[in-house]
Amino acid sequence: MTVIGKYPFQLSPQDCDFREQVSLPALGDLILQAAGKSADENGFGMQKLNTVNRTWVVSRMAIEMQRFPKWREWINIETWVEEVGRASTTRHFRVTDEYGKEIGGASTLWAMIDVESRRAIDLKTIDGLSEAASGIPAVIDKPGRVPSVDGGTKKTHSVRYSDIDFNQHANSMKYVEWLLDCFSLDWHQNHYIKRFEINFLHEVLYGDQVEIFHKQDEMLSLFEIKKPDGNRVCKMKLEWQ
Amino acid sequence: MTVIGKYPFQLSPQDCDFREQVSLPALGDLILQAAGKSADENGFGMQKLNTVNRTWVVSRMAIEMQRFPKWREWINIETWVEEVGRASTTRHFRVTDEYGKEIGGASTLWAMIDVESRRAIDLKTIDGLSEAASGIPAVIDKPGRVPSVDGGTKKTHSVRYSDIDFNQHANSMKYVEWLLDCFSLDWHQNHYIKRFEINFLHEVLYGDQVEIFHKQDEMLSLFEIKKPDGNRVCKMKLEWQ
Repeated sequence: MTVIGKYPFQLSPQDCDFREQVSLPALGDLILQAAGKSADENGFGMQKLNTVNRTWVVSRMAIEMQRFPKWREWINIETWVEEVGRASTTRHFRVTDEYGKEIGGASTLWAMIDVESRRAIDLKTIDGLSEAASGIPAVIDKPGRVPSVDGGTKKTHSVRYSDIDFNQHANSMKYVEWLLDCFSLDWHQNHYIKRFEINFLHEVLYGDQVEIFHKQDEMLSLFEIKKPDGNRVCKMKLEWQ
Repeated sequence: MTVIGKYPFQLSPQDCDFREQVSLPALGDLILQAAGKSADENGFGMQKLNTVNRTWVVSRMAIEMQRFPKWREWINIETWVEEVGRASTTRHFRVTDEYGKEIGGASTLWAMIDVESRRAIDLKTIDGLSEAASGIPAVIDKPGRVPSVDGGTKKTHSVRYSDIDFNQHANSMKYVEWLLDCFSLDWHQNHYIKRFEINFLHEVLYGDQVEIFHKQDEMLSLFEIKKPDGNRVCKMKLEWQ
């Protein structure tokens, strides 16, 4: 059992935006990759779960960066499980630069479901998972409940081939991409993302035409994505500076 | 001078589509990354060119795969320069699996321009470039001239934050994403990309609303992307089986 997994990544051009710094969805992807690698290494990852028709589902995520690293930089993502309850487990992340300096962190909340029945699995029954609970807290505030959007602007998006992942659902980091695409180049040039938070509520499938609601209150952006049937897909909060 | 550069990549979830196999734009990105690494290592890459206000511009690309590798697989991309003319240079690629078996190849045509004047640079004057010309041919047919699309269906796309790269132009592999998004999940499930070819003609900027023309003739797809001013952005050809 490796309590804290540490994974190096070199930032490639496609991880980076026009400022040559890692984009939030690309950073989120690397964080989720680190989570996957660590869980696989400890025997409770997707490689194992695939064989028993179960899957991990992330329900909340927060990312806070002091600095967004740049193209060609090496970063390390350290990750560990803090607690394991019956219904959910917390996994945290620390992002360091190549000199070991902390440049940001993330915190996530996960459940496990049966792929067929979509029912939650009691995490206390999962081999090795409880032993992985390190009690080590997150380096940032845990993700909370993101408020709903009341009014605001509305955009629509049809879920496409390039949006979906191996589950045939829209990849969760695509929501972040749709969100960032609501801001002008000028805004991105002049503002810096301080903290990002997302609550995942329902999955979206290929072909679904979702509605993206956006409310802006100075440096605070709230987003809500809804399905055609009115169900909420996710709620997101961005704090800028 | 390393005549043939060889770069290993492990396929991550975000490189892969719903079939858990590398998507064409992600593979194209890795191929372009290998080109960049090899050119940098030999002293005529972007790291050097950035300092003298010049840049490489890819004008044609072809990719042909016997098999699209899967998530978690390690692949190697070997790359070398075949010839160096005054106006353009050819760079080829060989993709192998972790056992060294060839699974595909690519071939590209490049020019170098001055960033300010947008004028072409005589490649014979570039240090080290002519010495890199290996004379080793491509493992696939070189990219030719893709025919224009006459009629067909039309879609529009607004160039967004997530489309642009450090040049503030739409990333060339985004064209491939827009193209693949024109096909249904069912089509992707039942067809296999045999050969892809692209001719790059004009760059597109953030905010441009481009028109994507598509003509389908059984297993042959032709695409043309046009700018608001009528100029062609690129022409693409996909052969399926």
